[in-house]
Amino acid sequence: MKPLPPKGTRDYLPGDIAVRESALRTIRGVFERYGYAPLETPAIERLDVLTGKYGEEGDRLIFKILKRGEGGERGEADLGLRYDLTLPLSRVMASHGDIPQPFKRYQIQPVWRAERPQRGRFREFLQCDVDCVGTASMLADAEMITLIHEVFAALGLPGYRISINHRKVLSAFMDAAGVVADVKVAAIRAIDKLDKIGRESMEEELVKSGTTGDTAKNIVRALLERENGSFETYVGAARHAVGDTPEGKVGIEEMELLAEYLGYFGVPAEVLSFDLHMARGLDYYTGPIFEALLPEGGVGSLGGGGRYDHLIEQLGGPDLPATGTSLGLDRIITVLQERAAGGETRGGYADVLVAVFDEAVLPAALRVGAAAREAGFDCEVYLEPGVKLAKQFSYADAKGIPAVVVVGPDEVSRGVVQVKDLARREQKEVAEAALADALKEVLGA
Amino acid sequence: MKPLPPKGTRDYLPGDIAVRESALRTIRGVFERYGYAPLETPAIERLDVLTGKYGEEGDRLIFKILKRGEGGERGEADLGLRYDLTLPLSRVMASHGDIPQPFKRYQIQPVWRAERPQRGRFREFLQCDVDCVGTASMLADAEMITLIHEVFAALGLPGYRISINHRKVLSAFMDAAGVVADVKVAAIRAIDKLDKIGRESMEEELVKSGTTGDTAKNIVRALLERENGSFETYVGAARHAVGDTPEGKVGIEEMELLAEYLGYFGVPAEVLSFDLHMARGLDYYTGPIFEALLPEGGVGSLGGGGRYDHLIEQLGGPDLPATGTSLGLDRIITVLQERAAGGETRGGYADVLVAVFDEAVLPAALRVGAAAREAGFDCEVYLEPGVKLAKQFSYADAKGIPAVVVVGPDEVSRGVVQVKDLARREQKEVAEAALADALKEVLGA
Repeated sequence: MKPLPPKGTRDYLPGDIAVRESALRTIRGVFERYGYAPLETPAIERLDVLTGKYGEEGDRLIFKILKRGEGGERGEADLGLRYDLTLPLSRVMASHGDIPQPFKRYQIQPVWRAERPQRGRFREFLQCDVDCVGTASMLADAEMITLIHEVFAALGLPGYRISINHRKVLSAFMDAAGVVADVKVAAIRAIDKLDKIGRESMEEELVKSGTTGDTAKNIVRALLERENGSFETYVGAARHAVGDTPEGKVGIEEMELLAEYLGYFGVPAEVLSFDLHMARGLDYYTGPIFEALLPEGGVGSLGGGGRYDHLIEQLGGPDLPATGTSLGLDRIITVLQERAAGGETRGGYADVLVAVFDEAVLPAALRVGAAAREAGFDCEVYLEPGVKLAKQFSYADAKGIPAVVVVGPDEVSRGVVQVKDLARREQKEVAEAALADALKEVLGA
Repeated sequence: MKPLPPKGTRDYLPGDIAVRESALRTIRGVFERYGYAPLETPAIERLDVLTGKYGEEGDRLIFKILKRGEGGERGEADLGLRYDLTLPLSRVMASHGDIPQPFKRYQIQPVWRAERPQRGRFREFLQCDVDCVGTASMLADAEMITLIHEVFAALGLPGYRISINHRKVLSAFMDAAGVVADVKVAAIRAIDKLDKIGRESMEEELVKSGTTGDTAKNIVRALLERENGSFETYVGAARHAVGDTPEGKVGIEEMELLAEYLGYFGVPAEVLSFDLHMARGLDYYTGPIFEALLPEGGVGSLGGGGRYDHLIEQLGGPDLPATGTSLGLDRIITVLQERAAGGETRGGYADVLVAVFDEAVLPAALRVGAAAREAGFDCEVYLEPGVKLAKQFSYADAKGIPAVVVVGPDEVSRGVVQVKDLARREQKEVAEAALADALKEVLGA
């Protein structure tokens, strides 16, 4: 009969929040350094604004809220829970006409999707989006890729790589290869799987998706013979692949500009990989697309994005060019936790517990607690004077509090305190005035 | 046809978030200094966990979520949006058996209530709760009052006062005065209005609530003759008012302990007011109650709380003693904003905009932007090279960005930049290497 949180949701206890907030502080810091500002929107949106925007499957996954009063008893709904952060951004661009453009905003808030809960997939999860709305300049796209690089570098993620391609190049490639319009989207999806399923299966998928065998063979050849991740081979392969389609030309010109700008931004070439087969799943991209990967450890995508010049209008906003990136917070945090597994982990509670021997020493204990706070430590004073010290110690242990200060009647009379290092099982007597230094020693601060 | 956020909700644009986060940083800082740790729970809870806990009125105000799939088409709901932060705390105590007690947690998350939207009242709003679960010690109650004092002092709120009383004293007072059980809650509600409606109207309300005229007169006399906010007069009046009821005795003993502990915590007597008529609206309190007020400016309550020893069990958790405080964030932020009205307000965007004269100077502009970031400034580089400088300046102006750095071809060749102070309409040429100092001057940092 234990009441649990709803299926697919989770409670964040102090230790979970400590890990997450440490990553978020770094991420927000990078965004803000580049002039991106926070936006927050309500968890609920009007259902008429939400529906019809994410396709049939998406509509089914929206949590719908019953009308209060009339209509509710018949099952009528008028509100829904936020499904992503792009629709709210579009709605904000429409609701607030006076936002200066380009609007450079980041948004880190939960979204809700009624998917079947499974390991590592949640119905309520935090999304982390950063977007630049109102400019078609490739500088904005280059800045997006720079943000991913700077965030991953700041987080200390090992060996990350940012894969880059262009939707117009990809589309022209398909046209030039002879893929007919009907199966183009399916063919692009098949190509995107190259890294996962290998050359042969990809060729099979292409044929299954409706591409003729010869066309499929041509595509495979165009991809495999020339790809090594460098910009030079990418451009060579792309020029060959798109032929003289006008769309292909535009795409290649934009990619050249993007690569130049990435150099100006100082993104090191070794973290970039230009990949003609990388497509990203979402259909709405119209320009450069990018995906952040940790090739080692099989973690897969840690986020990505691209330019989506008409989506904001499709979602009910004004017609504005835009580019953006989404970071996969849950995966990033998992990687950071695995890497920190050897290191010290703290419970997310205080740095210091002041144990209280009995009611008589309480004034002294509270004075010592205040001094520890004054010195910059998060410090709790045990709230039940007279409880056995052993119990107070195990309380600190259970909370992962590393330092315990004991103040007994003898200590009070001599103006000293006992400072216990719980991890090292050491205890040291110091003058009350030397408390801060003794705590710094225990906490390694 | 402008799509707005749902009625009773609001978007937080960057400037709104800047004001709010500044207050929240202070509040979180105080909580953590005292060893309180953050908790976050899902926005959605199971409807069977939520309903029947807040009374009939409360149940009607819960936003209910339609079942996905079967039952949904008939209007069946299985989830609801979080209505407060106390029920989730109770559920967490039941869901996670291994939480060390006392569990000292704070929680700052939105809650949803389907109230009729009106000025200053929202359907989605941020609650800020701090609670201590698992100890009956008056030290915990004293710490709650200390937290309110420390938060308000750190925020610089002027002339705040914390009104304190005890539910057992109040209940025994009513019994001793001859208020019959049926009308006790109504009588306590009438007394609570003393400050708002004055002596005569309160006496009328008491009679209307079912108290006899003589009893009402006695109550008024007991309250008015002896109240001045000091602890000594409070105890005197309370001893007189509760007679020799055992409940009254316990209440007064606890209040004496509380006052002693508040002295140990160093809360100055002048911010405290012991008021026999203060009752707080909620019925579930069982011990000390407290309310934070800004008497000047008619702002009313900025928060409050009290001991609620059986509520966690009533809400579905284990039977644990608890005490807690809720801060009225919206009101606190309004007060802070009004006080800052004369001062400088920033738009919540970057500190610095690097204007880009044309495509040719872009590498230099990006280099200057990187240097500003390196020096600790939030800096955006204008993303459309070649747009007229006047337009780039008005962009900075619209965003409230105080400093603009101009890099033109002439500047690049001479290794200098122009630093514009938009508020003072001043411009200064400095060597690129001296940029950080020039920006510090403009930003007053």
